[in-house]
Amino acid sequence: MKVTSYAQGKWIEQGKETELHSAVDGQPVATLVEPDLDYDAMCMHARTVGGPALRELTIHQRAFKIKFLAQYLMKHKEEFYALSTHTGATRRDSWIDIEGGIGSMFTLSSKARIELSDLPFHVEGGMERLSRGGTFIGQHICVPKHGVAVHINAFNFPVWGMLEKFAPAFIAGVPSIVKPSPLGSYLAHAVFKKMIESGLLPEGSVQFIAANVPGDLLDHLGSQDSVSFTGSALTGRKLKAHPNIIAHSVPFNLEADSLNCSILGPDVTPGMEEFGLFIREVANEMTVKTGQKCTAIRRTIIPEELVDDVAAALKKRLEKTSIGDPAKEDTKMGPLASADQAGRFEQNLQKLTEVSDTLYTTGNGSTDAYTTPRVLLCHKPVEVDDVHTIEAFGPVTTLLPYKNMDEAIAIANKADGSLVGSLFTADDDAARIITLGCAPYHGRFMIINRHSAKESTGHGSPMPHMVHGGPGRAGGGEELGGARAVLHNMQRVALQGSPTTLMHIVNQYVKGAETTEADIHPFKKYFEDLHVGEALTTHRRTVTEADIVNFGSLSGDHFYAHFDEVAAKDSLFGKRVAHGYFVLSAAAGMFVHPSPGPVMLNYGLEDLRFVAPVFPGDTIQAKLIVKKKTVRQKRETDKEPYGMVWFDVHVTNQDEEIVAEYTILTLVKRRQRLDMDLD
Amino acid sequence: MKVTSYAQGKWIEQGKETELHSAVDGQPVATLVEPDLDYDAMCMHARTVGGPALRELTIHQRAFKIKFLAQYLMKHKEEFYALSTHTGATRRDSWIDIEGGIGSMFTLSSKARIELSDLPFHVEGGMERLSRGGTFIGQHICVPKHGVAVHINAFNFPVWGMLEKFAPAFIAGVPSIVKPSPLGSYLAHAVFKKMIESGLLPEGSVQFIAANVPGDLLDHLGSQDSVSFTGSALTGRKLKAHPNIIAHSVPFNLEADSLNCSILGPDVTPGMEEFGLFIREVANEMTVKTGQKCTAIRRTIIPEELVDDVAAALKKRLEKTSIGDPAKEDTKMGPLASADQAGRFEQNLQKLTEVSDTLYTTGNGSTDAYTTPRVLLCHKPVEVDDVHTIEAFGPVTTLLPYKNMDEAIAIANKADGSLVGSLFTADDDAARIITLGCAPYHGRFMIINRHSAKESTGHGSPMPHMVHGGPGRAGGGEELGGARAVLHNMQRVALQGSPTTLMHIVNQYVKGAETTEADIHPFKKYFEDLHVGEALTTHRRTVTEADIVNFGSLSGDHFYAHFDEVAAKDSLFGKRVAHGYFVLSAAAGMFVHPSPGPVMLNYGLEDLRFVAPVFPGDTIQAKLIVKKKTVRQKRETDKEPYGMVWFDVHVTNQDEEIVAEYTILTLVKRRQRLDMDLD
Repeated sequence: MKVTSYAQGKWIEQGKETELHSAVDGQPVATLVEPDLDYDAMCMHARTVGGPALRELTIHQRAFKIKFLAQYLMKHKEEFYALSTHTGATRRDSWIDIEGGIGSMFTLSSKARIELSDLPFHVEGGMERLSRGGTFIGQHICVPKHGVAVHINAFNFPVWGMLEKFAPAFIAGVPSIVKPSPLGSYLAHAVFKKMIESGLLPEGSVQFIAANVPGDLLDHLGSQDSVSFTGSALTGRKLKAHPNIIAHSVPFNLEADSLNCSILGPDVTPGMEEFGLFIREVANEMTVKTGQKCTAIRRTIIPEELVDDVAAALKKRLEKTSIGDPAKEDTKMGPLASADQAGRFEQNLQKLTEVSDTLYTTGNGSTDAYTTPRVLLCHKPVEVDDVHTIEAFGPVTTLLPYKNMDEAIAIANKADGSLVGSLFTADDDAARIITLGCAPYHGRFMIINRHSAKESTGHGSPMPHMVHGGPGRAGGGEELGGARAVLHNMQRVALQGSPTTLMHIVNQYVKGAETTEADIHPFKKYFEDLHVGEALTTHRRTVTEADIVNFGSLSGDHFYAHFDEVAAKDSLFGKRVAHGYFVLSAAAGMFVHPSPGPVMLNYGLEDLRFVAPVFPGDTIQAKLIVKKKTVRQKRETDKEPYGMVWFDVHVTNQDEEIVAEYTILTLVKRRQRLDMDLD
Repeated sequence: MKVTSYAQGKWIEQGKETELHSAVDGQPVATLVEPDLDYDAMCMHARTVGGPALRELTIHQRAFKIKFLAQYLMKHKEEFYALSTHTGATRRDSWIDIEGGIGSMFTLSSKARIELSDLPFHVEGGMERLSRGGTFIGQHICVPKHGVAVHINAFNFPVWGMLEKFAPAFIAGVPSIVKPSPLGSYLAHAVFKKMIESGLLPEGSVQFIAANVPGDLLDHLGSQDSVSFTGSALTGRKLKAHPNIIAHSVPFNLEADSLNCSILGPDVTPGMEEFGLFIREVANEMTVKTGQKCTAIRRTIIPEELVDDVAAALKKRLEKTSIGDPAKEDTKMGPLASADQAGRFEQNLQKLTEVSDTLYTTGNGSTDAYTTPRVLLCHKPVEVDDVHTIEAFGPVTTLLPYKNMDEAIAIANKADGSLVGSLFTADDDAARIITLGCAPYHGRFMIINRHSAKESTGHGSPMPHMVHGGPGRAGGGEELGGARAVLHNMQRVALQGSPTTLMHIVNQYVKGAETTEADIHPFKKYFEDLHVGEALTTHRRTVTEADIVNFGSLSGDHFYAHFDEVAAKDSLFGKRVAHGYFVLSAAAGMFVHPSPGPVMLNYGLEDLRFVAPVFPGDTIQAKLIVKKKTVRQKRETDKEPYGMVWFDVHVTNQDEEIVAEYTILTLVKRRQRLDMDLD
């Protein structure tokens, strides 16, 4: 099997060859073919072919492609599992990498479609009023950068590491160049090959570099490009300070070393459920991926009186770790990823044992041939720095005893920034104090008790919904986090101008923009025929005391402001007012078209404000304006296709004063299916 | 007058003295006193005294202090205007700096109180569902960093530059160390002195460095600190790559050079209003602050057939620019900030004239003693690079002719990133094409026509509501933008755990958390007595066909899904359903307490979703849960104090299935005024 590059739409089969070996038996698995790549041409290809093709699609269309791609890859997952074994991964380890990676694509696709605009760019937040008369306003948008996103990935998660960065860039409309670590690159390559084979990705939207080092790649990047690096702090920081990166202010997302911790709460005793949950989590994080996880628990922070209990319970748990060939079903921990990695691990362990005692080396099975889990104890975690700075990338943790909560927080924060911390406690007050005390030093913080443990996704698993990254040693970057991951690939631009002009530019109704009265009732129009800024101004209705009485009787709402002449005198409005919900209901009564039509349903409402009171005798009128539209992907093929349409509603009184404003969410039938629905 | 440092709560009166001279007559204005500051101790003071004091306040309390500080500074504005003249600024120039700066504080304070939590930290976005059963969920929060925000500011806006960075850091809960440029530092110092005198700022929350260069300041920064730099690209990029900044992943916000442009639309002819507006804006941006604005229009992009018209009209306009002593009322343009600056300006002009023709040097008044506006013309703006990279920081612009829209876009984007671009056009289609074409290369983009011009705040003015910063040459940073500016000073943390634990930590109801039934009806409780997670479960109500009929008659909403048995059969639900707004109204009827009480008003509603249909015969019930609270600042002293309370509402049916969920916004009386109200 050859690990080849995919550049400018072609597989490059010739180049300097290096054998890649199995972590299990040292046998050759694949050959890395390293050609002389023209990085400048690859970047230009991405910028001039991939970028424009991506920008022709809306964010939702790009997100759908990611969903379909995830479905396609999932069909081939067993091929990936077979290769993954060679990296030293057990089935469980591979699951995190392969199905975790593909799963992230599903979530990112779905979050992007829920939270971002169905346009080539995203309209961010509401209109900003910059002038008294409202003729000059502001609106932020986030647009795809016109460059290429370079992803330099780590060896430990060849699939997840590639997909969690590729998917957000693609959805943002930015082409990627992926450079995996050579170690395990055959797995990344296999997945990448399927991505191209799927036929779903526009040419130029992604390229692949098979190489040991990225050569002069960074010299060719400009201000519209970006780099996302995962790996060692030493390399990452060197690249971040690269003169060309600095000169062109190239955004650089760095995710590096992290000495993550888990804390056992001061309330927990060995008999409590939380004690067992904590032991299980620490043992798990030490052994999953043979401890080669950026999020693994390197520092185990425990009450000083429980050192012996924790050490003993952890030993008992770790003894069950069957170590050996990851292909075997009962193996719980495979080998480290390479002899090099094993050497580095031992070196760092050596340094750690200068400031800590080795309590035990344990495990079950081929403990001679493979690395075994090790538990250290540092007696002076507040004074000693090395346990907070030296990362041994393998199955090891150091126990760090604390005296009180303040000390637990101080120890946790000593690592100067981490990807994730966790806390096991049954006491929500302790949870609040410790969590808020640790928060600024951690990108993610997980609090577990008996109620959350069963469904917990674990200390070590970044979830695509939540940001991944952390301050300081963790590199200061931010990945994932739902739609945030997509926006990280975009340029935020502050637009200013007249509401009508801005509506025209962003293709979304902007408050204050000119509207056009619809030719026929909007409820009679199909999705395709409804245009942003199209409006319906209704007939009027005079609100009477009878309406208030009837509405109170029907709803049961006899609030004094509507019914108590005496108390209403002392209220905010000085006299009786109509119910707000009556105004809402009467407005619907005015704008709803009673016959069956394309508008099927009003399923929600946003940003309602009762701006001014409506008194008996006031005459109200409603205006319905098409604000924005989103195509909805059909699930079942036997039903009609539809989309979502947001209507802004303004209810005014006889003085043309707005009394209520809000946005209603409707489902509207489409005339026809899109090509994309057919998938 | 002495410009002294304020470090660790003390003014340092001794140090190396340097005379600072007036830009107008070269006479001494002030003395810069440069002591040997202990930067490490200053940083520690901020971290250990200022930070903890700020974090005891909520975001809203900190924002109120910024509002009160702005009011205090505004009272002293004339003292600042008097000093500002020495920097070469006319009254109009000073207005931008002084009242623009103070005005930013008002806006940032208000935006923070509207958009961010009334807690020491901000609860960002909704709960993220991470598990099927909902016992393990996610919630993002943004917490103040435990470090210090270092602000290194430029000479051109001594007041605005200081306040626009200080206010967001303060509101975020992060102490600042301010280092102004020595040029004009006497003005920054005067304002700073008033800030301390106000007594509003907790000790340690802000310190001031009087110095030419920041010495070894950056060596003392760590991962919880940050740097915000405004100034030349050369210095800024050097500091950004500082080994300690890189090693500790210190966030570095860089706002540097920018070759901003303004484009005259292809539709505009000399007779049109937009032509005059364009000429006025270009002339204005050339001469305000004598062209020493990071946002000034350096590149004037115009249709090639209009070169002569634009040159002539611009000349006519610029000829009226009376140049001279900025203290005189009729002076429109003062001198450059110093002899050094004038020298640098001439040097860069020299370079520009190697690739451009000088069309004219113009102006009116003391044109011998002072710098005069100059207009250049570059015939080959697509081929020549220098006009897009050399920034002459003074009253100059270069005309760049274009052939068609694509070329206009290409020329605009050639500067490789800018703070702001603008476009003058009466054609909204051209506006869309050019704006979206230019968007990724500009931090802000303004589109002006006859409708927006009158109220426009201008090409060159960053507004506190909108982000300020831009990609590439503009430094890649982002400032202002309302609440965004505050969040830039915070660490985003992804919390995971059980809903109840997370509610306890973030002090806001989190969907799925355990609630406690209120002892008395929540509408009878004062603001202070309502607790997050406190709930009211109402009586039940069976919805009948009579309700549907009555509601339709009263509202006028006779939609077929409620009234047409035949059509309803073919609808989504297969039979007639109750109106969504009836469910909403009936829920209010169940949870509203009719007597007068502390809950005064339901003024709005958010995130309403009709989750499931309600059929005649269904029995509904509502649950009202206190979600979050915000103290509202009183405006008039004769009325009672109040706050805002958000209640989550769940309406369920007889199967305990949720049929509707939403959040209502209420105004609730407070038992007592806060100290802060007294201001």
